[in-house]
This record gives sequence, structure tokens and C-alpha cells, in this order.
Amino acid sequence: MSDHHRSEWQTSVSRVDEGKVLIRGYDLESLIGGQSFTSSCYLLLRGRLPSPGEERALDAVLNAVLDYALLKPGTVAARYAVSANPSMVAGLAAAVLSVGSYTLAPEDTARFASAAYERHLAAGTSLTETAGAIVADARARKERIPGIGHPLFKGVDPRAQKLKQVAVAEGLWSDRAELYEHVHRAFVDAIGKPDIPINDVGMMALVMLELGFTPDEMTGLAVLSTLPGVIAHVSEELASGRRIRTVPDDQVDYTAIEPRDFTTDRRIAGWDDIT
Amino acid sequence: MSDHHRSEWQTSVSRVDEGKVLIRGYDLESLIGGQSFTSSCYLLLRGRLPSPGEERALDAVLNAVLDYALLKPGTVAARYAVSANPSMVAGLAAAVLSVGSYTLAPEDTARFASAAYERHLAAGTSLTETAGAIVADARARKERIPGIGHPLFKGVDPRAQKLKQVAVAEGLWSDRAELYEHVHRAFVDAIGKPDIPINDVGMMALVMLELGFTPDEMTGLAVLSTLPGVIAHVSEELASGRRIRTVPDDQVDYTAIEPRDFTTDRRIAGWDDIT
Amino acid sequence: MSDHHRSEWQTSVSRVDEGKVLIRGYDLESLIGGQSFTSSCYLLLRGRLPSPGEERALDAVLNAVLDYALLKPGTVAARYAVSANPSMVAGLAAAVLSVGSYTLAPEDTARFASAAYERHLAAGTSLTETAGAIVADARARKERIPGIGHPLFKGVDPRAQKLKQVAVAEGLWSDRAELYEHVHRAFVDAIGKPDIPINDVGMMALVMLELGFTPDEMTGLAVLSTLPGVIAHVSEELASGRRIRTVPDDQVDYTAIEPRDFTTDRRIAGWDDIT
Amino acid sequence: MSDHHRSEWQTSVSRVDEGKVLIRGYDLESLIGGQSFTSSCYLLLRGRLPSPGEERALDAVLNAVLDYALLKPGTVAARYAVSANPSMVAGLAAAVLSVGSYTLAPEDTARFASAAYERHLAAGTSLTETAGAIVADARARKERIPGIGHPLFKGVDPRAQKLKQVAVAEGLWSDRAELYEHVHRAFVDAIGKPDIPINDVGMMALVMLELGFTPDEMTGLAVLSTLPGVIAHVSEELASGRRIRTVPDDQVDYTAIEPRDFTTDRRIAGWDDIT
Repeated sequence: MSDHHRSEWQTSVSRVDEGKVLIRGYDLESLIGGQSFTSSCYLLLRGRLPSPGEERALDAVLNAVLDYALLKPGTVAARYAVSANPSMVAGLAAAVLSVGSYTLAPEDTARFASAAYERHLAAGTSLTETAGAIVADARARKERIPGIGHPLFKGVDPRAQKLKQVAVAEGLWSDRAELYEHVHRAFVDAIGKPDIPINDVGMMALVMLELGFTPDEMTGLAVLSTLPGVIAHVSEELASGRRIRTVPDDQVDYTAIEPRDFTTDRRIAGWDDIT
Repeated sequence: MSDHHRSEWQTSVSRVDEGKVLIRGYDLESLIGGQSFTSSCYLLLRGRLPSPGEERALDAVLNAVLDYALLKPGTVAARYAVSANPSMVAGLAAAVLSVGSYTLAPEDTARFASAAYERHLAAGTSLTETAGAIVADARARKERIPGIGHPLFKGVDPRAQKLKQVAVAEGLWSDRAELYEHVHRAFVDAIGKPDIPINDVGMMALVMLELGFTPDEMTGLAVLSTLPGVIAHVSEELASGRRIRTVPDDQVDYTAIEPRDFTTDRRIAGWDDIT
Repeated sequence: MSDHHRSEWQTSVSRVDEGKVLIRGYDLESLIGGQSFTSSCYLLLRGRLPSPGEERALDAVLNAVLDYALLKPGTVAARYAVSANPSMVAGLAAAVLSVGSYTLAPEDTARFASAAYERHLAAGTSLTETAGAIVADARARKERIPGIGHPLFKGVDPRAQKLKQVAVAEGLWSDRAELYEHVHRAFVDAIGKPDIPINDVGMMALVMLELGFTPDEMTGLAVLSTLPGVIAHVSEELASGRRIRTVPDDQVDYTAIEPRDFTTDRRIAGWDDIT
Repeated sequence: MSDHHRSEWQTSVSRVDEGKVLIRGYDLESLIGGQSFTSSCYLLLRGRLPSPGEERALDAVLNAVLDYALLKPGTVAARYAVSANPSMVAGLAAAVLSVGSYTLAPEDTARFASAAYERHLAAGTSLTETAGAIVADARARKERIPGIGHPLFKGVDPRAQKLKQVAVAEGLWSDRAELYEHVHRAFVDAIGKPDIPINDVGMMALVMLELGFTPDEMTGLAVLSTLPGVIAHVSEELASGRRIRTVPDDQVDYTAIEPRDFTTDRRIAGWDDIT
């Protein structure tokens, strides 16, 4: 059509037409009972059906974090929220909002690993040589390497290693992932802290890169992967009937709040309305 | 321990101990690559591993909605939000917040179906007789039956029927679900609108009841099931580079906003500060 | 226009036209420096400028809660959230989501007080008699009276009394508010707990009823009134540089999470994929 | 105390003690009816009472945006959200989440203006000379100047000018603000687009800098300033009774979603479970 009018909205995710819901072109009816939720997740983001190996790798990614007791801020935020507003939806949203640059952000690692690999391809050096150059630069600029370190795990993060093992078994481990491991090794040796491991979120980023997701989608998948745990915690909190959680006074330093006199201070501030 | 002190928090979802993350007692490492995300979802909520049939039914539930183009308010809210605040997390939260009593709320149907079945057990009548009595009462009180009706589907919601088919095949279809169908049939016949179908959310509720989830958990799972679609839409919106979506003026009636004079009206309202 | 087409959207809040932003008809330029934020708040919701007395009453309402240290769940949720996602916007949203039926919900009291007054007008009895009848009914149905009781304040909630004092001084205290006080008095006497006071949120509801706000708007104003405190707390938390707040282990009972063997249990659950 | 134990939490915003709520040291009772909400807002963030001039300037800042019809993404997101989940709280949270780097973010301008002024002090040149050097650098690095430009206003943003006028009248206009104006003027002249004005959010940032707020607090105040408008819109949407807003089909290009055959494609993807 030559005079095509561009609409306000463009989308290729799904379409509802003649009594059919088409998900990336597939009739929704055929997906229900036809494939796993993980496969549908892959389909929605990548626009095509996954192979069995891709599904196994994505399942491993989505299982890599799952839950982390009351040591994850989003879980605690959600439980506080529903102790005041007893709503599953409010609790889930509070947990979603607690994902950001300090936690569960594979996108930083993904961007770093991608950029490193592009540099590698441009340089034409060996993986070891490229890694050395990258580490030297990072140290000169006092930059950290994203995706490494964990308060609990030293030497190795066993969750990350299990995830890598699945990815390798499915052929989803490229030179790009390999280079990142070289960079990690060179960096922790250089700073003299060889027991800092690649963490689970870092490894999730490497595997999701192989699966073809964008950095934004990775963050979305990281959020998704933690939601079943949050649902469980919110369900537990709501069932407990606890109302209005507070922070006990003995855990708080109420500093620098000495009583002051409002009338006096308001007059000093220039107001003449005090009688 | 006789002098046990009750802590501020109680949880049985997961525990981090001696370098292990235990999810409902299972080492997280064994779950990565050991079972699907859907199985882990079941484990986190029900506290035990699902059977293969339970996993298939939950997969079908999680696939029942998936995405609904730009006809789902939460998707549109998310796209508006990220056109101003280009953040995946903000977009997902906006979509989560758009789940409520008008949409994606299986909990109403679940509570209704549970109560109906308890009445059935107490009455000792046949499913048909109980259904008739329930419908008579609902009509007398001018109450609606939750979980029925859809703007697109008449006669049958094919997604709902496919979901039922999976549940029946897995032996997850009890008299409770059967009774709800009787109630639906009696109700739509009674009001003379026999082509109002059980909708997908209603059917999700019936199957999730068989799987043993609580109403709150059902809402959580309904939110979870739509997130991959939301991730896809937010990814699409962010990739489009579109900034600051608005509603075009030709779609808005700006009613009853005639220009008014502030100085005059403020004086009329009793203020003498206008010079 | 006879063939008027009804648009998708209708609004009378504001309009942007010919280089002017008209807020309920007033040029935004005239409001900047022309009146207080509280007056603009009144204007946006009620559609007209407030009198000086109405502004003073609304100011008192918006000051009635302000902040409540770390004893308000939303504040704590916000601080947990930003310790993971260092974003003011995320923190504010987490706090907003923590407003609900257990806290800061004047709408329940407002609906109760309105219904009570309608009953009074219909009955034609004295305030005391109507209050007695309402309390008798509430006790027979084992219902509570919304807007009363506070963990800290016994006998009287001084914030509530100060707020009432302002409203009375501005002539914003009608028989409707008076009746609610009668109901409160009769109820706490009847249950033998005369030191349960009308709380601040209950009193906010009474005054906002006099100011003409709807129950939904009251909830919105209650959220608004707490936001400056939340901004202060989030600012404090972000400035502290604290990352990834957790709940210390000694405050948690990790119950019923005994280690279990995945391989064994998965086989028992009916899976034959374990080798 | 020599063996002082540092608690988990530190705060100096408010304290609840012996039946008193102390807001930055002032008894909450004295603030209710004692000062405006705007003054309390200043007190909570800055820790001291404002002077009358500071209050007037903050009122002007909080009035600078107020509402922007259906041309603000957060308002539209909120209305979509509550058409599915009829909850004031959910609507407000959706609007809060729609504040970010593309809109209502005074923090960028504030950081820019602060850095520019520090450079000015270090250089010891005139305001004009510093501005020239800054613009030359920005153009060389192809960077934009934050806080300028508006789709509606050319030459001047009248809201911004009115806000400046109030700030100047209250003595809240320093060389730092003056320098930013020089930079703006030099920049738009240099790129040959002299009618790009300083916008309202840019001017809010300049005045809030004078008032002593941090960049994060500025974002919080920008969110606060738009909430009365959002409450009004959500109230209007809820009162309309509209359910499940969608995007009309004629506004959407459903691109690249041709029907595909699931069974065929799943087999091609490597699955042998299709019978």
C-alpha cells in the first residue's frame, strides 16, 4: 500500500484476530499443553521456538537464583508492604522494584562481556592476551569487573558452576564466555584476591548472551526468575496474619533528633503568625 | 528448647546455611539443571516436588494467558511508563500493578468454587440440584458468577477448553470443578445468555484449586504467567526509542475546562492577597 | 454539534491549548507564585479554589501523619528497596504500595461515617439515639468501627484532637462528624475499653468528608501526605551508601526446612529422568 | 557511651518517644495547624523550618508542573492500570514509576549546573567566559545541555519564567543559576536554535539547588508535585466506571505476526514429542 499510514503503535509480540490469539504467530491453543512455560517464555522474547537444549539452558538460568531467604532486599520489602496492604499484587510489585544496579542486574555483565569480545575480535590477539589488556585498562581506570564476588561464596559459586555445566553440555558456551572467564581470572589474580568467584548473576548473563537475549530482557528474566519465591514469601506473610511490621526500637539509632520548640524556631525563621 | 524465644520473622521457604542455599530443603545446586522452572515454581509454593502430571497441568495454566496484544491494560501501562522512564523494572512493576479485580483475578472464582463445593458436601444433593440452588440464590441476590464471560469468545473460550483437557488428562478434575461447570451452565441458561463461556481465568482458577494453591497464590501465578509477554512488549518499546508517549488530542474530549480568571476567583474565594 | 462523536477519553482536570496549560480552567502561570501547593491540590481535586479556611483545614490534614520513624511499613519497604535498587522513584513507589487496608486508609471511616449519617437522617432520631442503634447493630454483627484505636495513644490521639480543633475553628465540623464521635464513644463504652481513641486516620477521614473529597481521593491524599517523609528516608538511605539490606539471621526462625535429597524425592514423585 | 553498639538502622527524620511523634525534633501536634504542608515538606528534607521566602519559593516549585492533561505518560499509565485494577494506590504507583530520565528528572540539570559552577569558581573567569568554554566543550563532545527544550513552548517557557521570577523576588537566585542561563544562551545560539527555552523542569532544578535539596530529593519533589494531578485523574477514571481500557485496533500496526504452524515448527526445532 503506497500511502501507508504509520500507526501510533507497532508490535509483533501477539495479535488477536478472528477469535484467535496468535503468540508470535502461533495459536495460543496449541501452546497450552503443547509446550512448557519456559519454552513460551523463549518464544515470546526471541520470536521462535527453542530447541530442547535451549529450553534446558533457559530452565537452568531461571532456576539459578530462585530464592535467598530473608537475605534478599526485595523479599523483605514485599513482606513489609503486605503487612500494611494485604495484597499479593502490591507485594510482587515491591519486590520487582527492588531489582536494580546493586542486585540481580545481569545487564552490566552482559554489556561488559559483549564489549570485551568485540575488542578481542578487533585486536586479533589470543583470549589470554586480550584478557590481560582489558584487566590492565580496568585497573588503570580503577574500574571493577561486573558479575564477580559474593558475600557467601568464596573460590567458587556452586550455583554459577552448575549453570555453566548445563550451558556447556548444551553447546551454549562460546569464546565470548571463555574470554570473560579469562578476564575474571586475570583480574582477581592481579588484585591479589583469587577467591573472588564469578557469581550467579554474572553466569546468568553469560548464558543468556548465548541464548540471544538483550540486556534489558536479561533483567526482565532475572525478575521473572525470582517471582515464584516472592509469591511464596508473600503467601506466607499473608497467612501469618501479621499486621504493620515495624523495625524494633532496639535496632535503630534515632540520632540527632533532639526536641525543639516550634513556636520559638518559627519566629526565628521569620514568621510573625505565632500568637 | 523450653525457653524458646519467638523471633520477629518465621519462614520455611528457603534457608542459607553453611554455603548452601536450601529451597524448601533441597540444595539449589541440584535444582539447576535438575528440574524445570515450572517444577521449581510448584516446589516453592507447595513445598514438595510435583509429579510429571502436576507439572504438565501447571505448565498449561502458566500458558493459558501468555499475552493479549495491546488489549491488556497492564501491557499498555507498561509501555507508557517506559516511554518516560526507560527501565525494564519500572515497566514490569507497572504491569504487575494492573492486575486486579477486573482482570486476571482467579481468586474470586476459586473462592466461589470452593464455597459452592462446601455447600454441596453439606447439602448432600446431586451436583445438578446443588447448582440449581446456588444459581437461584445468586439471582435472588443479583450476584454475578465469577470466571465467566469474555469480550471475544462466545459459546466457548478455546483456551479454557484446552486447559481443561490437559487437567482432565492428568486426573486433575474433581467434583468441585464439575460442580462449577454445572453452576455456569445453569446460570447462563437461567439468564437466557447461553453463549457466555467459562473464561480462561475462571478455568485457571479451577485447575489451580486442584493443584492445591491458595487464592492469593493463584493471583501471584496469574501475574507470573503474563510477565514474559510484558518483558517482550517492554523490550520492543525500549528498542523503538519512542519517548514520552501521549494520547493524541483527537482521542480526547477535554470537557468542562473553560478558561477562568484566577485573580477574580481567588478574591471571590475570600483571599485578600491579590494586589 | 449534533453528530458528536464520543472520544476514547474524557477529562476535565487540565487542558493544554494554544501555548497555555489550563488547570481546571486556570492558567498554570497564574498559579505559580499565586497560591500554595495545598491550594492547588484542593483545586485539582475539587475543581474550584479553596477559601482560606478550607486551605488551612487541608494543610492540617496533610500534616496529620507526616512521618512515623521506622514504625511505618512503607518507609521500611522503601529503604530495603533502594538498598538494592538505588532509585528515588523505586523507593517512593514501594512506599505508595504499602498503603492499604491495614494502614492509612481513611476511606473505610469515610464510608462508615457517611452511611451512619444517612441512617440518622432517615431515622429522625437524636444523634445519641442513632449512635446507640448503630453500635447495637455493629456489636450484634461483631463488626468493628473503623478509624479508632492506636498502638501508642490511649484515651486520646493528640494529633487527631489537634486536627479536629483546626476543623472546628474553620467551621468544618458538621453533625456527621459529631455523630461519628457519638458512635465512637458509645462503642468503646459498650465494649468496656473507654481508652480507645479516634485515631489520626479516622479524624483525617472526618475532616476530608467536610472538605468534600471522595473516599478514593482521601486515600490519594493520605499517600501524598506521607511522601515528604518517605523522600527524606530514601534520601537518608541513599546517602548512607548501604547496599543490600538483609534481615539478620538472629531475627529469623528458619522453620521446617530440613535438608532433603532431590534425587530420591524426584524419583518418588514419579520422574524417571534421574540417572 | 564508650562501648556503643552501632545499630542496624540510623535515622534522624523522626522519632516516636513517650507518646510524642517528633518530626526533625518538633512535636507533630505543633505542626498540625501550625504551618503549611509545604513548610513541613521543607522541614522533613532540610531538617529546619523554612523562612517565609523559602516557603514561597518551594510552593512555586511544587506548582510548576501540576498537571499536563493526557500528554504525560504517567497519567495515562495510571488510568490504564486502574481500568484493570480499580485501586487508587495502584494508580499512583504506576504514575510514580513513569518518572525517569526522559521526563521530570531535575537531577540531571542540577548536577550539570553544580558542576558548571564549580568549574567557574576554579577557573576564575567571568560568567560569560566560563559559559563559552563549557559550551565549546559540550559541542566538542556532542553532549546536550539538560533542562532545555519543550515540545510546546518556543522562545520561552512561561511556567519557567514565572518560577524564576518568584525565586528572584525571594533572593534565591545566585551566580550558579545565572551561569546556567549564560550556558543555555550560548548553547542555543551556537547550534543556531535560539528559540529553545529553559524548560520548567530545568528551572525547578535551579531553584531547588538554591533551596539546598540534593538531586535525589529533587526527583522526589518532582514526583510529589505531580501527584495531586494524578489523584484527580485516577479519581476521574474510577468514577467513569470504565473497565479494561485497550488500544483500539486502528491505532496499531500488528506487524510481522503471520500465522505459523506449531506442530511443524516444534518438530523442526528438534522436539519429538508431537504425535
